[in-house]
Amino acid sequence: MLKPIRDNIVLKVIEQEAKTAGGIVLPGSALEKPYRGEVVAANESFTMPDGSVKECEVKVGDTVYFGKTHGTEVKQGDENYLVISEEFILCKE
Amino acid sequence: MLKPIRDNIVLKVIEQEAKTAGGIVLPGSALEKPYRGEVVAANESFTMPDGSVKECEVKVGDTVYFGKTHGTEVKQGDENYLVISEEFILCKE
Amino acid sequence: MLKPIRDNIVLKVIEQEAKTAGGIVLPGSALEKPYRGEVVAANESFTMPDGSVKECEVKVGDTVYFGKTHGTEVKQGDENYLVISEEFILCKE
Amino acid sequence: MLKPIRDNIVLKVIEQEAKTAGGIVLPGSALEKPYRGEVVAANESFTMPDGSVKECEVKVGDTVYFGKTHGTEVKQGDENYLVISEEFILCKE
Amino acid sequence: MLKPIRDNIVLKVIEQEAKTAGGIVLPGSALEKPYRGEVVAANESFTMPDGSVKECEVKVGDTVYFGKTHGTEVKQGDENYLVISEEFILCKE
Amino acid sequence: MLKPIRDNIVLKVIEQEAKTAGGIVLPGSALEKPYRGEVVAANESFTMPDGSVKECEVKVGDTVYFGKTHGTEVKQGDENYLVISEEFILCKE
Amino acid sequence: MLKPIRDNIVLKVIEQEAKTAGGIVLPGSALEKPYRGEVVAANESFTMPDGSVKECEVKVGDTVYFGKTHGTEVKQGDENYLVISEEFILCKE
Repeated sequence: MLKPIRDNIVLKVIEQEAKTAGGIVLPGSALEKPYRGEVVAANESFTMPDGSVKECEVKVGDTVYFGKTHGTEVKQGDENYLVISEEFILCKE
Repeated sequence: MLKPIRDNIVLKVIEQEAKTAGGIVLPGSALEKPYRGEVVAANESFTMPDGSVKECEVKVGDTVYFGKTHGTEVKQGDENYLVISEEFILCKE
Repeated sequence: MLKPIRDNIVLKVIEQEAKTAGGIVLPGSALEKPYRGEVVAANESFTMPDGSVKECEVKVGDTVYFGKTHGTEVKQGDENYLVISEEFILCKE
Repeated sequence: MLKPIRDNIVLKVIEQEAKTAGGIVLPGSALEKPYRGEVVAANESFTMPDGSVKECEVKVGDTVYFGKTHGTEVKQGDENYLVISEEFILCKE
Repeated sequence: MLKPIRDNIVLKVIEQEAKTAGGIVLPGSALEKPYRGEVVAANESFTMPDGSVKECEVKVGDTVYFGKTHGTEVKQGDENYLVISEEFILCKE
Repeated sequence: MLKPIRDNIVLKVIEQEAKTAGGIVLPGSALEKPYRGEVVAANESFTMPDGSVKECEVKVGDTVYFGKTHGTEVKQGDENYLVISEEFILCKE
Repeated sequence: MLKPIRDNIVLKVIEQEAKTAGGIVLPGSALEKPYRGEVVAANESFTMPDGSVKECEVKVGDTVYFGKTHGTEVKQGDENYLVISEEFILCKE
């Protein structure tokens, strides 16, 4: 399994959350639809730009939502993963 | 319920505050009209970029106002939520 | 009354200060004319981006001047307020 | 008298220094001509963005030079003042 | 062998990872394909912009993936290397 | 004599160093030619943005080189000076 | 000899490294070719923007590689030097 560096985490993307149940939250606002994914690898903590150490707020098995993705697709064997910084994770179920 | 990561909070949007009672505060200024929402999930505190820990200034049940939204709409079951950083919350009732 | 979050303060705008008494300070410079307002709500202190705590330099009842406004107009009941960061307050009477 | 907030100071502008005595320092360089002003109000010290406290390097009565002005003209009674950050003061006589 | 300065590391590039096994992770998103390389030189730790010391998370012999490369190609003898900051390393095998 | 504020220093410009002896260092690179000047006023130390105190690395009488100038020409009596931040000084003889 | 200020170092440029032995590392990527130079003057350490002190990682006599150059050509007597920040040095032999 891939081992993420710094504040990156490795995800299996479940699917883009495009469906909106009924009403749209903010009419007229071009808000992004989030993606959903499952965490398959993450560091317990990582070093912040100022040298302090931060706990990673997601762990293997979590289902997470992330907005605009800055990730990179990485293929290992037959699997496609998304490597993305914890900074872009919005929330988890 | 969704659990926010870092300084994000989860809101139910009440409605965009477009109506202005009588006089407009700053004539000619293209000031934004704020949105109003109810907090449904928030962390008690979170880590700032420099590693220090900050108290979250809103809690579940608060009615808050927020300006330009950088949020992301997240659907869970039949509910639509807005996930947004505490940084963009202006004030609460 | 609205309760401001972080370094925001809540103002009642008195009026834009457009009149200039006689000479203009810097001929030919496109300097902004300031706005004047009365502080109706402010936190005693707030957390800075680096986690340190700063005293708020204005308090309820102060008459303040502010330049380019990044504020947001918030209506509560029949009243229109301006919510703006302490960072944009220039001086007080 | 106006009381400046944070690192702002209040000046009476004397006049823009446009005249150049003989030779121009850097031929062909579009350097700005500075303004001259007298300090009428300043805080003894102020809080920096990182929370540390800095001594203000100018005091009431100093004659100072400042380059590109980011100031704001504020009128109080019949007087026109310039409110500007200490950061833009170059030197004093 | 080249000795990297600061947070740089020296890599032998294996090959750009362009092939995608079957499904593409995020349809329609112009995500970058990563490069793969082997670490041939790295400092054990380095000084961060704020003066704190950070452990380098890769070491000689690691196979790493990196996205958009900000690197510089350096030729020594008959060998071509890529010198790149640890900041742009996503993960390792 | 002018007294510089913060990290500014006061220079008498000697002359722009345009002549190049024989070979040009980096063919095809649009590198700037530096200016040369003599320091006539400088603070022994000054406060950095983060509140720490830094020794000024130049003193009265030094001949210094500086690249793209962000300075401001200040005239006092019959003399023209350049007021510039220590940050833009490259080296001294 | 020139004495560098802050994190600057003084180099004699050997030559731009344009030749590539055989294969190019990253086909299709517009990576820069580095320059090579010999260090002729450098401070043992220097103050970082946050006030901390950093060891200079190059010393007189080192042969170094540097990418996009932000340097300034300085002529002293018949010699042409390049004055550049340690930040832009990639690696050394």
